[in-house]
Amino acid sequence: MNPVRYGMIGGGQGAFIGGVHRTAAAIAGNWRLVAGAFSSTPAKAKASGAEIGVDPARTYGSWAEMLEREAALPPEIRIEAVSIVTPNHMHAPPAVAAMEAGFDVIIDKPLADSLANAQAIAGAAARTGRRIGVTHTYTGYPLVKQARRLVASGDFGKVRRVAVKYTQDWLSRASDLAGNKQAEWRTDPARSGDAGAFGDIGTHAANLVEFITGQRIASICAELTMLGGRRIDDDGAALLRLSGGGRGTLTASQVCVGDINDLAISVYCDEAGLHWRQQEPNTLRVGYRDRPDEIWHAGANRAYLAGDILAIQRTPGGHPEGYLEAFANIYAAFGNAIRGEDAAGDEPGFATMDDAIAGMNFIRASLESSRGGAVWVDL
Amino acid sequence: MNPVRYGMIGGGQGAFIGGVHRTAAAIAGNWRLVAGAFSSTPAKAKASGAEIGVDPARTYGSWAEMLEREAALPPEIRIEAVSIVTPNHMHAPPAVAAMEAGFDVIIDKPLADSLANAQAIAGAAARTGRRIGVTHTYTGYPLVKQARRLVASGDFGKVRRVAVKYTQDWLSRASDLAGNKQAEWRTDPARSGDAGAFGDIGTHAANLVEFITGQRIASICAELTMLGGRRIDDDGAALLRLSGGGRGTLTASQVCVGDINDLAISVYCDEAGLHWRQQEPNTLRVGYRDRPDEIWHAGANRAYLAGDILAIQRTPGGHPEGYLEAFANIYAAFGNAIRGEDAAGDEPGFATMDDAIAGMNFIRASLESSRGGAVWVDL
Amino acid sequence: MNPVRYGMIGGGQGAFIGGVHRTAAAIAGNWRLVAGAFSSTPAKAKASGAEIGVDPARTYGSWAEMLEREAALPPEIRIEAVSIVTPNHMHAPPAVAAMEAGFDVIIDKPLADSLANAQAIAGAAARTGRRIGVTHTYTGYPLVKQARRLVASGDFGKVRRVAVKYTQDWLSRASDLAGNKQAEWRTDPARSGDAGAFGDIGTHAANLVEFITGQRIASICAELTMLGGRRIDDDGAALLRLSGGGRGTLTASQVCVGDINDLAISVYCDEAGLHWRQQEPNTLRVGYRDRPDEIWHAGANRAYLAGDILAIQRTPGGHPEGYLEAFANIYAAFGNAIRGEDAAGDEPGFATMDDAIAGMNFIRASLESSRGGAVWVDL
Amino acid sequence: MNPVRYGMIGGGQGAFIGGVHRTAAAIAGNWRLVAGAFSSTPAKAKASGAEIGVDPARTYGSWAEMLEREAALPPEIRIEAVSIVTPNHMHAPPAVAAMEAGFDVIIDKPLADSLANAQAIAGAAARTGRRIGVTHTYTGYPLVKQARRLVASGDFGKVRRVAVKYTQDWLSRASDLAGNKQAEWRTDPARSGDAGAFGDIGTHAANLVEFITGQRIASICAELTMLGGRRIDDDGAALLRLSGGGRGTLTASQVCVGDINDLAISVYCDEAGLHWRQQEPNTLRVGYRDRPDEIWHAGANRAYLAGDILAIQRTPGGHPEGYLEAFANIYAAFGNAIRGEDAAGDEPGFATMDDAIAGMNFIRASLESSRGGAVWVDL
Repeated sequence: MNPVRYGMIGGGQGAFIGGVHRTAAAIAGNWRLVAGAFSSTPAKAKASGAEIGVDPARTYGSWAEMLEREAALPPEIRIEAVSIVTPNHMHAPPAVAAMEAGFDVIIDKPLADSLANAQAIAGAAARTGRRIGVTHTYTGYPLVKQARRLVASGDFGKVRRVAVKYTQDWLSRASDLAGNKQAEWRTDPARSGDAGAFGDIGTHAANLVEFITGQRIASICAELTMLGGRRIDDDGAALLRLSGGGRGTLTASQVCVGDINDLAISVYCDEAGLHWRQQEPNTLRVGYRDRPDEIWHAGANRAYLAGDILAIQRTPGGHPEGYLEAFANIYAAFGNAIRGEDAAGDEPGFATMDDAIAGMNFIRASLESSRGGAVWVDL
Repeated sequence: MNPVRYGMIGGGQGAFIGGVHRTAAAIAGNWRLVAGAFSSTPAKAKASGAEIGVDPARTYGSWAEMLEREAALPPEIRIEAVSIVTPNHMHAPPAVAAMEAGFDVIIDKPLADSLANAQAIAGAAARTGRRIGVTHTYTGYPLVKQARRLVASGDFGKVRRVAVKYTQDWLSRASDLAGNKQAEWRTDPARSGDAGAFGDIGTHAANLVEFITGQRIASICAELTMLGGRRIDDDGAALLRLSGGGRGTLTASQVCVGDINDLAISVYCDEAGLHWRQQEPNTLRVGYRDRPDEIWHAGANRAYLAGDILAIQRTPGGHPEGYLEAFANIYAAFGNAIRGEDAAGDEPGFATMDDAIAGMNFIRASLESSRGGAVWVDL
Repeated sequence: MNPVRYGMIGGGQGAFIGGVHRTAAAIAGNWRLVAGAFSSTPAKAKASGAEIGVDPARTYGSWAEMLEREAALPPEIRIEAVSIVTPNHMHAPPAVAAMEAGFDVIIDKPLADSLANAQAIAGAAARTGRRIGVTHTYTGYPLVKQARRLVASGDFGKVRRVAVKYTQDWLSRASDLAGNKQAEWRTDPARSGDAGAFGDIGTHAANLVEFITGQRIASICAELTMLGGRRIDDDGAALLRLSGGGRGTLTASQVCVGDINDLAISVYCDEAGLHWRQQEPNTLRVGYRDRPDEIWHAGANRAYLAGDILAIQRTPGGHPEGYLEAFANIYAAFGNAIRGEDAAGDEPGFATMDDAIAGMNFIRASLESSRGGAVWVDL
Repeated sequence: MNPVRYGMIGGGQGAFIGGVHRTAAAIAGNWRLVAGAFSSTPAKAKASGAEIGVDPARTYGSWAEMLEREAALPPEIRIEAVSIVTPNHMHAPPAVAAMEAGFDVIIDKPLADSLANAQAIAGAAARTGRRIGVTHTYTGYPLVKQARRLVASGDFGKVRRVAVKYTQDWLSRASDLAGNKQAEWRTDPARSGDAGAFGDIGTHAANLVEFITGQRIASICAELTMLGGRRIDDDGAALLRLSGGGRGTLTASQVCVGDINDLAISVYCDEAGLHWRQQEPNTLRVGYRDRPDEIWHAGANRAYLAGDILAIQRTPGGHPEGYLEAFANIYAAFGNAIRGEDAAGDEPGFATMDDAIAGMNFIRASLESSRGGAVWVDL
């Protein structure tokens, strides 16, 4: 299959997530990076492009320039899609423009810095008919997909309770904001949006709940806090009510010392409990009452996994695949979708507009709840 | 040291926790069971006494009879203390009467079936000057004591966030209430009090938070639920605010399938996170940001543990001590206290009246919060 | 049931394993300690008896005196059994004498300090018809029994390979022998026998292999070593051939730093692998090829465990039982056997003479193999 | 840095490890696949090249053709290195020829199907001065490198004992050889060499021992077995003596049911024990006697790791990197070496000729030992 030619917006020197996207695309194998607007500083954009190995002629000084000049290239040469890896406040403008220029868009989460801007993106997608995929990385893990499948099967009954946490410690000290490019924009409401931890990682946690349960978060009672002197939340917890009637708890924090990047979820159904933790992503524990727990293993040769989940794995069981491979699965699925090949399973393999809008709504409701003194707010 | 002579109230045939108390006392070694009112049914009381091996002459048909007749025996013969292991609604009457008859009291948690009855017990303790100890089992584990010590040292800074869960699955099916003596009384508000899971195990979770952090829960926002047809909660979760300013989450459930008896707590301080789980009680994980995590091991020869914590352990490291030994540590400490030998550490080794009243207050506030629609209630 | 009256030989002040036996007997509940010869030093014997709470009139200055004077008491008063917890070289004399005096014997492992002395004990047992039980502690764990049951069922096919290790670090430094009563006798061939680690803990490992597989170790190729200046092995490893044709590895060490008391075994059969580790004794992992692994949990309410294994547990699942409870299970079973009540399962619940002789043979062959340069020796 | 242009030998349709090499090279980022001789069947070679995306003009029908025609291209166009991913018996001929044609070589392990053929490769390397790197994957993991560093520091004293296992179950049934391309050549002595499991995965285990300890295996006593009807070993275990005086055990098996790909190593030094397991590669446990165990975490932001080890990681802690990233680290290091940039640490970042010859010697000695009845053989 012919790889999808893409241009990247953002992701130049000093960035983090851009490199992850590029590696993920390389692992996926069905993408080729051929253009880039890697920085809003033209000199830095050029230098980044050289470092990354993109043709200087297609390393642009701005995303607007890239969109315009690529659109003018012959169809078999020009980019087909853009990958947007800028800070949140710079999501909507290039996303809308790219779709209007005829390109599909793959974009990091959260979708935007505000619900309104997210809706602008969704509007452009609807208007232009372009495809858009959001990289909620963790749904790219094979065993997360298998967990969803197990819940969806109905064999375990209804979802009663979920417990999800996404905790980190990289902002645990007051001094962490100084001199760290990542910290600076992620804690600046002008660039990150009004939410901090709840926007950056709480949305991942919420998305994981919705992905595995197949339900939406219907109401939330959240209390967000932050270390002295900060402007947006770096820590918080919430009670959840799910659309299907189950209950839940969600914690997101950037100041939980010793928790490196601890995303973990438990989903309790009438007849089983499912447990997955991102730091050991290749096992899924399923607990029962009348028989031993099960440990499901990832691996391209674990025949008890669903066929389409087996198919996205690159190595036999016991050769751990990790974060980059999960990310690659999302790129692979979106690339396939662009080529007209939909995912074999029950979900597209990447987060959709609906999922991403739900994430923005989650941010909106969390902030509203917390500002009201941790009261219940519907999504 | 001369063992403390005690009589047991409750704990006859078909009971669960009474046998645990007796074994704990036997392991502790400083107690001797010499009398009992094991059942409110005299025949069953007698049969239980015979089975347990108590002198028939001191196996009584009621606790009132036991208190009266034991008080009439010579001081060097008669019981010195009673152990109360009845359902919650039968805690206050014998506890008050026993103290008034001059006996110290060790009693299972929660202290009573209502805050009012708990306060009656506290009043009797204050009035009579008798000792009373409450068996919040989990604080008897050596590494829970060590966790408290580490937090109290101040080396890790202030407590920021706690996450505690106590989840079980033994009531996960509607049919579980039928024909199970334990289930029957624990789900009957007339015997258990108005709280179900939050009273039975939520109080343990709350106590563990307060024990390790050295703080009280100041406010709570709780939502309790129950399977159709039940009268008291079998599941719930809460947001917490601690007296020292930290935040927390607490989940207690008897319907989380696959969670056998899963009590687990994380306490995040400014500079470390502490993690303990009852099902693997002999390790304590301490996570840091700038250096490797630590795994602390229990064991009488782990010289890095505090001296008085080393001293309560019965075996060298790697010979797992469990639930019965933790329980025995509480009996040992209370027995020592009766003998005038206070615990060497910073806490008495058993839950005090204050702790137990705090637990009852936790129940009261949880119910009030949930009935109000999961609103914040102060304790 | 009337408890078995017993006297203890050894286990006075400064001893370790004696206290474990007494606590185990107390937990078992079907034993009563009524006499003792706790030390070969009469004054220490007396002081120990007082501390332990044995009637001074039945606290004897020597085991010979105890056997003689107890035998002279009325049958309903005198001891029925002795518990021998002395260093290895003091096993055979009291064991033989006790059986000849008409008492049953429960005795710590290894059975004796030499194969010849072990055979003398076996001879006395055969001659007198007295019962003798050996405390191979780890076979008292419920999930070890369940593992044996699973292998014996034949559902998993034949045993292919076993891997067992029992590693400690308490003798890891040259200086560890000085001033440590336990270390002194356990590293002194005159008291411990010719084997060190292989005798003290290697026998436990070997016994566990034989217990779970239902096979004997048929041949061994072992290399034992020791730190400079020591007289008997503190470390070693071996290749094994089992009587049923399977192969195995066994490691026993007292100098593996960081391994506190790490007994772990894997048994691979044609269709499953079973894994148990003493430091987390309440789970048993069973690995399969075509379906998820299973985690079996201990607990009196885990209905998937065999009925007689459920029955020996004291608490519902998730309330961890540990080393003392495993030890208590052995006492309980031997006490029941004395009362004529054999274990319900497929094994007596304690190690028999045959098992113990196999253990001595294991020691003999290991030493012979190692002395020959790690050559194969049949057992 | 300009990527290294390479051609691949082997790795066409139906192969496994070739795809792993290509993905690893893509993740590494400093390699570009520009040519290939993907199969010895020309049609399959072409089809594979098209699928992989290599220019048809540089997709060759045989490796000999590739070497000849690439060597004829201008220096700035032609390949600089070859990656050899054929079955073992097809390692030596192309490796020798490639070096003689002036190309550097990266090659899968074991180096060859026999010690003689391995020595032929080594001879060619010495003769031509070309670089050759062997992909002992597991040494590419950051925490394996850190373990080596910790041992090499000397802070933990000398190595006393190692225990390594590499166990799989994919050949656990007699029927597994039929219709599985991987199984067929790996169990055929004509293609795999005389060793089966010991060659395929035992060499990885042996290499890991040597890498972490910085010592060679000096002598071995091995017993290899196989299921009925097989020609080369599928299972075996060995006692080891290390060049520095330590002892060890090694197990390698393809028939240990439930062990998916379970490579695990423990290295005990005088003052610490180090434990790493490939299925959870992002943690390293270090056990001590006088202080808590440590859990070291991988991650580009774990500042306690050595600087050059931090530098090879692609993501912050808690974003698991796995097998493909470890493999990529080897490609990256070898690519850097080709560009004249040696690894910053104490080892080249890939297995050298010496390491690979040691591996072949390990195979030779294991077979000799086992054929002699499991006797000691020097390496």
